[in-house]
Amino acid sequence: MSGAKPIFIAVVGVGGVGKAFLGQLEQLRKRLQQQNAPIDIRLILVRRSNKQILQKEWEGLDIQNVLTQLDSSTEPVPPFEETVDHLTTAPGNVVLVDNTSSDTLAATYPSVLHKGISIVTPNKKAFSSTHDLWTSIFSSAANPTPLHSSPSPKPTAHPGYIFHESTVGAGLPVLSTLADLLATGDQITKIEGVFSGTMSFLFNAFMPSLSPTEGGTFSAEVTKAKNLGYTEPDTRDDLNGLDVARKLTILARLVGLPIASPNAFPVRSLIPQELESCTSGDDFLQKLPDYDARMHELKTAAAAEGKLVRFVGSIDVVAAEVKVGLERFEPSHPIAALKGSDNIINLYTKRYGSNPLIIQGAGAGAEVTAMGVTADLLRVIRLLH
Amino acid sequence: MSGAKPIFIAVVGVGGVGKAFLGQLEQLRKRLQQQNAPIDIRLILVRRSNKQILQKEWEGLDIQNVLTQLDSSTEPVPPFEETVDHLTTAPGNVVLVDNTSSDTLAATYPSVLHKGISIVTPNKKAFSSTHDLWTSIFSSAANPTPLHSSPSPKPTAHPGYIFHESTVGAGLPVLSTLADLLATGDQITKIEGVFSGTMSFLFNAFMPSLSPTEGGTFSAEVTKAKNLGYTEPDTRDDLNGLDVARKLTILARLVGLPIASPNAFPVRSLIPQELESCTSGDDFLQKLPDYDARMHELKTAAAAEGKLVRFVGSIDVVAAEVKVGLERFEPSHPIAALKGSDNIINLYTKRYGSNPLIIQGAGAGAEVTAMGVTADLLRVIRLLH
Repeated sequence: MSGAKPIFIAVVGVGGVGKAFLGQLEQLRKRLQQQNAPIDIRLILVRRSNKQILQKEWEGLDIQNVLTQLDSSTEPVPPFEETVDHLTTAPGNVVLVDNTSSDTLAATYPSVLHKGISIVTPNKKAFSSTHDLWTSIFSSAANPTPLHSSPSPKPTAHPGYIFHESTVGAGLPVLSTLADLLATGDQITKIEGVFSGTMSFLFNAFMPSLSPTEGGTFSAEVTKAKNLGYTEPDTRDDLNGLDVARKLTILARLVGLPIASPNAFPVRSLIPQELESCTSGDDFLQKLPDYDARMHELKTAAAAEGKLVRFVGSIDVVAAEVKVGLERFEPSHPIAALKGSDNIINLYTKRYGSNPLIIQGAGAGAEVTAMGVTADLLRVIRLLH
Repeated sequence: MSGAKPIFIAVVGVGGVGKAFLGQLEQLRKRLQQQNAPIDIRLILVRRSNKQILQKEWEGLDIQNVLTQLDSSTEPVPPFEETVDHLTTAPGNVVLVDNTSSDTLAATYPSVLHKGISIVTPNKKAFSSTHDLWTSIFSSAANPTPLHSSPSPKPTAHPGYIFHESTVGAGLPVLSTLADLLATGDQITKIEGVFSGTMSFLFNAFMPSLSPTEGGTFSAEVTKAKNLGYTEPDTRDDLNGLDVARKLTILARLVGLPIASPNAFPVRSLIPQELESCTSGDDFLQKLPDYDARMHELKTAAAAEGKLVRFVGSIDVVAAEVKVGLERFEPSHPIAALKGSDNIINLYTKRYGSNPLIIQGAGAGAEVTAMGVTADLLRVIRLLH
């Protein structure tokens, strides 16, 4: 590895995605070493809420044992800003990998980028909160417009790059494809799809495409999905539609709509109004069966038309309309025919005409989410190299 | 544009795709200029079989009028090698855009790359002919392995980069997605899909998914497809399966199978053996109805199982088996439910499990093919910048 250029990796967040990312990082490091690549990947920071290991000699932590090390660490945890300032003294380029879903961390991105540190992240908060934060992030980055694949003027101060493929559809190539379409001059007219693995699983069970009448009651399917680990610990965090609203906010901004926040457009919540005051997720799940009749009615109405109910998000770019809610589809429509917990994203463009460019597959899960992050890391490495 | 770094573009081939590419290039040039980007795109060569315009002062041709200029040009057309040698004297990086499907041009790629010129192309010949040519191309390029998205040692002599997204699925993000999957350490287990817009259109008409019995006879649908402009001028060039075999050769090599040539695995030709000696495409089309009974039998057999016949290519990576032929699918299968002349590519990987990553949409057409070429050009510009 003599002569190989070091690239310093700082990881924050070591939950499911963080752990999977560290596994992929170690694989990548080994592969580059085997190939005698002129790049030397060095993990120099691992941090979670109450623990941190910082490799102050810039030599690279042992990725395979770093989590055990972190568990037993008694190192004091300095404020994040202090750690960032230390990172700026690294003898080479630094990439921050934010595997959290923290608002606080997202708010520091502009300053991190200004300091020349690049960021790759699946954290939706940074790109789907206020429009001000979004503008601030992209005006601080070396890829200053959201059309991040088009070459653009680099300010002389060398700010960092930022990529966030995994914020929509996990590792599915959604944002990179959108960037290529825009950069080559295509016009996006509409985006429509199923953007939540949980909602996909839930509706494929509630009203299966091949046997629409065989699904259980809505509350029974919610409970089943929770027991199988397909939902957030509190199912209301899926049913309120906010996760999908955040993804649509990200996509809508990328195609040029200045969406103020994920609350700035109609989002259908599947939490009955009467249950909005429930104090716990368990309490909510217990009372949900009382409202099954409403969802059953929607199912019956769709079935009467020979259609299926699905929870979809859509962006009508031409009319500048974004919405999240229940829609009906013919059984042969790709959105209705979706399997398991897959996501599907239909990109309607001028060049592609009436048949959209479709990207489909698992849109959640630690390994595929981490894959999007690792692919973004490789993008940054190529740009920095 | 003062201070902007020039990038010199040399275009060979100005048919449908070439013309669409020139349109996109002009759009891109204008957009970069408007954004004050530090890149100055200059078209310096336009060449077709019997005409050529070379801008010897490196100032950039007027893209909008260049085809009229080419038509009326009386400039002598030097051998391609001579023109390449001249391009190497450009005061900056040169990208050759090969919009032909020429074998001869493909054979020059190794030497073009060696001379420091990058290549972007939808020309399948270079990547699907002999394995020797393929090896020679990638050992000459700055991205020396087919896993072209992984950072790799750059030889000191600065060879060119090569990208060829549009050789499979036109502008659909097939090769870039495959490259990301491989570069991040996923394992591809199987690739299956409909890789020909013509075959897609033909079988969707011959045996429609929503009304399998309503299609016309095979020969009638072939004639209809030809009259609508969905086939090659000689329909046998589609029906022999070679186009699909070339695309599978490209994909199989990318996932590590050392396929010798597109003839090295089973390819089902839809040309009846008795008609292989037809002297013209018209003669062939006239006699094709005599063999409709065979295709009708296949259709009936599939229908008896409640399935649909489709013309698919598949690569079983684990068993190292590649084949092109007719397969049966349930109507709800994404391959059967395909619309119009769309392509569909199913990537089965270790991380994605039993539900593949699916990419679907128009896989032919001048604008979408040119889009893949333009996106590749942007990739090269980012790497060179």
